Parts: sequence; C-alpha cells; structure tokens
Amino acid sequence: MLDILFSMTAVPSPALLTDLYQLTMMQAYLEEGLEQQAVFDLFVRRLPERRNYLLACGLDDVLRFLETLAFDDAALGYLDSIGRFSSRFLEFLGRLRFTGEVHAILEGTPVFPFEPVIEVIAPLPQAQLIETVVMNQIGVQTLLASKAVRIVTAARGRPVVDFGFRRMHGIDASLKGARAFYIAGVEATSNVAAGQVYGLPVAGTLAHSYIQAHDDEEEALRRFMALYPDTTLLVDTYDSMAGLELVVKLARELGSAFRLNAVRLDSGDLASLARAARRKLDEAGLRSVRIFASGGLGEDTISDFIETGVPIDAFGVGTEMGVSSDAPSLDLAYKLVSYAGTDRVKLSPDKRVLPGRKQIFRVEQEGRALRDLIARSDEPCEGRPLLVPVMQGGRRLAASGETIAAARKRAAAETALLPPHVRGLPPADPSYRVDLSPTLQRRYHELAAAHGAPWAPL
Amino acid sequence: MLDILFSMTAVPSPALLTDLYQLTMMQAYLEEGLEQQAVFDLFVRRLPERRNYLLACGLDDVLRFLETLAFDDAALGYLDSIGRFSSRFLEFLGRLRFTGEVHAILEGTPVFPFEPVIEVIAPLPQAQLIETVVMNQIGVQTLLASKAVRIVTAARGRPVVDFGFRRMHGIDASLKGARAFYIAGVEATSNVAAGQVYGLPVAGTLAHSYIQAHDDEEEALRRFMALYPDTTLLVDTYDSMAGLELVVKLARELGSAFRLNAVRLDSGDLASLARAARRKLDEAGLRSVRIFASGGLGEDTISDFIETGVPIDAFGVGTEMGVSSDAPSLDLAYKLVSYAGTDRVKLSPDKRVLPGRKQIFRVEQEGRALRDLIARSDEPCEGRPLLVPVMQGGRRLAASGETIAAARKRAAAETALLPPHVRGLPPADPSYRVDLSPTLQRRYHELAAAHGAPWAPL
Repeated sequence: MLDILFSMTAVPSPALLTDLYQLTMMQAYLEEGLEQQAVFDLFVRRLPERRNYLLACGLDDVLRFLETLAFDDAALGYLDSIGRFSSRFLEFLGRLRFTGEVHAILEGTPVFPFEPVIEVIAPLPQAQLIETVVMNQIGVQTLLASKAVRIVTAARGRPVVDFGFRRMHGIDASLKGARAFYIAGVEATSNVAAGQVYGLPVAGTLAHSYIQAHDDEEEALRRFMALYPDTTLLVDTYDSMAGLELVVKLARELGSAFRLNAVRLDSGDLASLARAARRKLDEAGLRSVRIFASGGLGEDTISDFIETGVPIDAFGVGTEMGVSSDAPSLDLAYKLVSYAGTDRVKLSPDKRVLPGRKQIFRVEQEGRALRDLIARSDEPCEGRPLLVPVMQGGRRLAASGETIAAARKRAAAETALLPPHVRGLPPADPSYRVDLSPTLQRRYHELAAAHGAPWAPL
Repeated sequence: MLDILFSMTAVPSPALLTDLYQLTMMQAYLEEGLEQQAVFDLFVRRLPERRNYLLACGLDDVLRFLETLAFDDAALGYLDSIGRFSSRFLEFLGRLRFTGEVHAILEGTPVFPFEPVIEVIAPLPQAQLIETVVMNQIGVQTLLASKAVRIVTAARGRPVVDFGFRRMHGIDASLKGARAFYIAGVEATSNVAAGQVYGLPVAGTLAHSYIQAHDDEEEALRRFMALYPDTTLLVDTYDSMAGLELVVKLARELGSAFRLNAVRLDSGDLASLARAARRKLDEAGLRSVRIFASGGLGEDTISDFIETGVPIDAFGVGTEMGVSSDAPSLDLAYKLVSYAGTDRVKLSPDKRVLPGRKQIFRVEQEGRALRDLIARSDEPCEGRPLLVPVMQGGRRLAASGETIAAARKRAAAETALLPPHVRGLPPADPSYRVDLSPTLQRRYHELAAAHGAPWAPL
C-alpha cells in the first residue's frame, strides 16, 4: 500500500491529526450516550471570486486515513497528559476504529457550492473526530486542482509543468499538489518524490546556478547539451538575447550534431523576449527548437500570451499554481446534517446548512451539463447522480480504488461537459445553475421555522 | 530525536524531495568535475506589500534534513527508472551525505530583503541538491511566522489561538505552522498532533455540531458546562443573543456552582455582538466571563476591534493566519554567490544576487535597531552580527539546538528592538534601512561590469 499522507517522516500518532475540540466533544458525546448515527456533509459555501467551479480532489487520502485510523499508546499517553480526558474515554479511543460509510463525488469531477463533496455516515463520535483531516486534505487538494485546471485551460493544449515545490506550503502540499495538478491536466512535475510516490511524469533540466558555476556561459551550455541531447537550455542567466546568440553559435558549430528540444526564458518581458527568440531561432534555421517560458506565470499571463500570438510552446508554473495565489483557501465546511435519524440545521448568518442525506444530480442534454440539482437522497430525480458509495463499514469499496490516470481522464471529460462560459476563465455570468429540489427546500424551511429563524433563499 | 518533517506517514525516500533539475545538474557537475566548494544564499528579494519585516523560521527542520540526508535503494531504483542517470552517478548518490557548513540567522529574528537567512557552504553537488527542501521549509515557516507576528501585534497582549489546521495546506504545513505561530507569540493551537510533537499548549472546547446533535441548545450548553467546568461555550449556533440568554439563565439556575471561562462568538457582526454580549453578561453579574471571538479574523479586524474598544478578550484565528491569505508566498531565492573561491553573480532583470560570503550586522542604539548592514563575511563592521554557524561537517553545532521556547523568546525580544513604525501594521514609511557595505557594493559593481551589465543600485 502506498503511504497515506506524506512528509519526510511520519507524524508519531496520525490519529492526533485533529483539533482538540473534536476530542473534547467526543468525550461529552460518550458521557451523554450520544453515539448514534450522524451524517456530516463536506461542501463549499461559496466559490472564490475567480473560480466558476471547483475540481473535487483528495478523496483517496481521506479514505486511506479512515481505513487505518487508530490511537496508539503514544497518542493515548499524550492525551492523558493534557489532563482533560477520563481513563474511560482513553480506553474507548484505544479501541476506536472508523466503521462508517462514505459517499463522495469522485476526484476530477467539477463541483459547486452546497454540493456535498463527501458525505460521512458514522456514529457521532467517529464522524466528529475526523472533521479536521477531511477538511484539510479535501481542502488543499481541491483548492490546488481547481487552480491548476484554470492554468491548463489557459494554455489551450500547450503543456504545463509544475514547478511549485519550493514555494508550496510544506512537503505534504507539494506531493498532494503535484498529484492534484496532474489530475487537472498538468503534464509533469519537477517534484521527484511525487514522481516516485505517484508515478507522475517528472521534468527538469537546469537552473541558473549551473550556468553561474561555470566561468563562461557558452561553455556551460555546450557541456550541458553534450551530456543531455534534446534538452531544454536556460538562456537568461545574464542576458536572454545574448544567451540565445550562444545557442545559435553552438548550432552553427555543431551542425547536424546539434540537438536541442527547447530554450527556456525565465525572466524579463517574456512576451517580447519570446517573439525575439522565435525570430532569432527561425532565422538560424532552428525552427524545431521550442520556447519554454517560466517565471511568475499564471492563467492570466498565459491566456494573454496565447491570445496575442506570443510564440511560447510550453509553460513552467510555480508559485501562482502552487499556492493558488489569488485564492489560497476555500470556504469549506463539514457540517452535521442529521443525527439519530433526525435532520439538523445550523442557521448562523452566512453559515447555513442543508438538512439530511442528499444526492446531487447533474442534468445533461446533448453532451452539455445544464444544471445540478441538490436533492434528498431518497428522491428520484432526473439527471446523473454524482454521489457514489466509496466506503462501507470502514472498508473501501471498489469505486474508490481508481488510478490517478482515471481521475485525470474524468477531469478532462467532465470539464468538457460544462457550458463554455463556466469552463472559461472570466467570471461566469450567469453562474452555473444549481437548484434545490422542492422537497429539500421545504425541509429546510420547516427546520428554520422551528428555530424561529427567517427563511432565506440560497 | 523528533521526526524531521511531518505527515501521517513518511515519504518513502526523503532524499527525493527535490526538483528533477537539481539531479540533472548534479550529474553534469560530476561529469565536469565541478565538485568544489559552493556558497548559496537563501534570501527574499522583496517583502510582501503588507509586511515590514519577516520573522526567520524553519532552520531546525532544514538542519534535521541535512543531518539525515541519504539515498536509499528505493530512491536509487526510482532514479534509475527515469532513464537519465548513469550508474556511476547513482553510485555517487548512494554514498552521498551532506558534509557542508551552514550559517544562519536564528529562528525568531526579524529579517529584511537581500539578507541571507541561510548560507550553505558545501561541495557544489550537495549544495545544489538541497535547494528545494531548504526553500520549501524556510519559505512556509517564515511566511507563516511573519503573518502570525502581525496578528499577535494587533491583539496587543490579548491571547491569540491557532484555529488554522483545517484550512492549511496539508499536514506538514499545519504542524510546522503551529510551531511557527507559537514562535511568533501565538498562545496555543487547536492542532493536537502539533501539541504532541512540539509540546505546544493546545486549546479547544466545542463546535456547532455539538449543539446541533442535541435536540435543545440549552440542554447542550448545560451538559457541556457540567462536564467541563471553566470551559468556553459557543453561543451562536442558532442566534448569538438567544444563546447568551441561555448562558445567563444557566448562571441564575446554578448560582455559585456556575463556572464559565468564556463565551465564544463565531459568526455575524462580531463587534456589535461582543458589545451586546458584554452588556448582557455584566448586567447578569457575569463580569468574569470573558468573550472569545473567532470566524474570519485577521490583523485588520483585530486591530479595528481593539482601537474601537470592542470588548473581546481573546481571538481564535484560522484561515487568514493559516495560509497567510494576503501574501501566501514569499519571493524567496537560493542563489549561488561563490564557487571554488570565486564570487558569482546573476544579473537577470529583478533577479540580482549579491556576490560572496556575507555577514549581516544589526546596528543598535539605546535598545533600538537603527539599520542593518549587509557586508562581506570578512569585513569588520559595527553592529551585532546575525549570521551564526549552526552546522559544520554536516553536523549540527550547539547554536542550532535551542528550544522552541528560546526562539519564541528571541522573537519577542528582537521585534521589540525594531522601530515602532516597522513593528506596526501599516506599511513602514520609511522602510527599515538596510545598507550594503562599500566593499560589497564595489564587488557587485566589478562583477556586473565584467558581464557587460549596467550597475543598478539595490
């Protein structure tokens, strides 16, 4: 089995990857005998400003976590040391395993606000405990996949390579992110560990320091190319156009032995440098040498380049994709929607919750998604159901066992179904239509009224 | 020994936590016999817009990584499978250990642009390999500490608690972040694993789901308070003021047996709710019950609250601090500044590098930092030197072995030395003064001229 959630070495006690209040509440639940079945929904309340949809990602890690959840002696000893937990509770934790059921929207599927990406059905203490990890993992992976799909969209078929590792938030994010980017359509990653762990294509040739370590730029380029035929050479260490001159000089010198895949531009005005570089390469008969650009790129710059015909053939994208710069977090919530067979709501301003178990239907016509319908789980509705069972009795079901390649394929196919203005980069107007079924609306209204809160449409 | 870099389970081969181009360059270095001593500087090129300084953080993890760096068979097997590396190179990697020297600005110290946070002195292939991890770890930890110190500053002595785990980018960031926050002056974290791993104070009581799991809010509050005397009760699940009424009712009912530390407000207009809550609590004779606020807080909201006298006693801060929302990345660079005893520069636009080994001097007068001086390492200058040796021959030196408490103490003491307008939240005008020594300026000029590049002042 692959490792679950990655870093250089393991967290001593993975079960402690939770907020303290989850444990405080759990102990109270047990004291009060509140151990019946709970249903929690994980969903986003609203999209970030510059996102027309999110790409669901992170399910695989959540299921691995749930399958192996157990408190070891070190964890119990640490909790004991806090001085807040009874020995009865610690014994309970020592025996605890996740025995619940999970329904989920599969990785690579576009999702919209209020649609449960994951629905957890488990005894209340278990479902409560896992909130933090579920939010953390679905959160970061969905965040990064949703940014990456915009960059891939902007590149219109030109390869995008993940250069984000150094700027991403820690090791775990760098690995999960590389996987999420690949699912979203990114071609390869610079992250070698991600290549090993997930079998992703890896890419990378040289940095400025290689050039700097030589006394002479020309000598550096000549030697690197000799060692790596068909490589990509970085030409902007001192001056991009001077660097390109050196490449042309090497081509003349080597004649038919000259083999180069691309030159990389990493600084300055990339658009005008790329145009000048293309002219220079073409004039030198080096039409097959491609231009690879990197350095501060995001979907806006890439989109501008392509719309204005800038001759760049591939993009290396780092920071902007690696931390989802323009929207570095999601307004994600994991909320109790049912307990002991009774629907629950929460009515705090802007923090509403839709009650009960649900199903999401995507209504399609002639290969185009028209709208989604959020319904009660037992309502028969038109459309394709998106929530599928992925875990039962704490064990993964076949549906959850897909490859990364399958999730990537789904992302490509499902985003292609979206209306073009939703799939595109500018804010979708109108936004993708998501309806509540009449039955779900009625139920929300009933519960809100019971708490004396006014009805407010979603 | 503590684990090095955390997640739920270990990365199979930590040595592969690098960009592919580092390995490609390393192989070239070996082919060319470029194995002499290199010096790399890690520094920020510019501060994010809303930061007057950064708080150095992450050194401890970098040194742990370097001390244990080794390629195992799985790593070598994977690299072999890429088809780009010779067996000679793989054998070299199999024997590789980090044998270099590291100088660093210690954790908790304010740093400014172009000041090397870390200086690595090692054979070129080693120093190249580690770039990605060094940038990733110093980057995220310095980023998060630098955001947290602003929030702590805004709170003016009122406790700040880290609620960020669920929204942070993965497990590694959540743990390293909790540590960085604590160093920056945050009081406690909700992250239980961070408590176990780092011995940080942990905090947390209950969430809305606890209230929702009961049929009745009053019953939920009563039971929770009975189980946890002196706890903090969440009162906004359905309606904040109605929730407060319930607290007052419980106080009347329980009389002298009523013990409550605080109420927590987590939604709505926190300023007006806090004022109303304070009035209501005071009127009921509950002056000792404090008000704890959370939900979308950052340094601006906290600062506004305090300046306008909003009666909030403590703050729970999540997303804004957890991902450094307003500046989710740093413009960090790790650059070759010397090879084989010869100074190196890089002159790409906006990507300049200062040549050679350095020392940073902080010039102080009457307990106030006046300015920093970036000098050559062998220049005697006035001021307190900030770069200290922390590793030699691949082994940590005593200076690097400090506790988290010591780093926290340093952060408090060192930020107190900064001029008030630099320590404060608004953009510092003028910004903190950082000078280059005349010798360093001259050397940069000489090298720039040698490459035909124009001189540009820093």
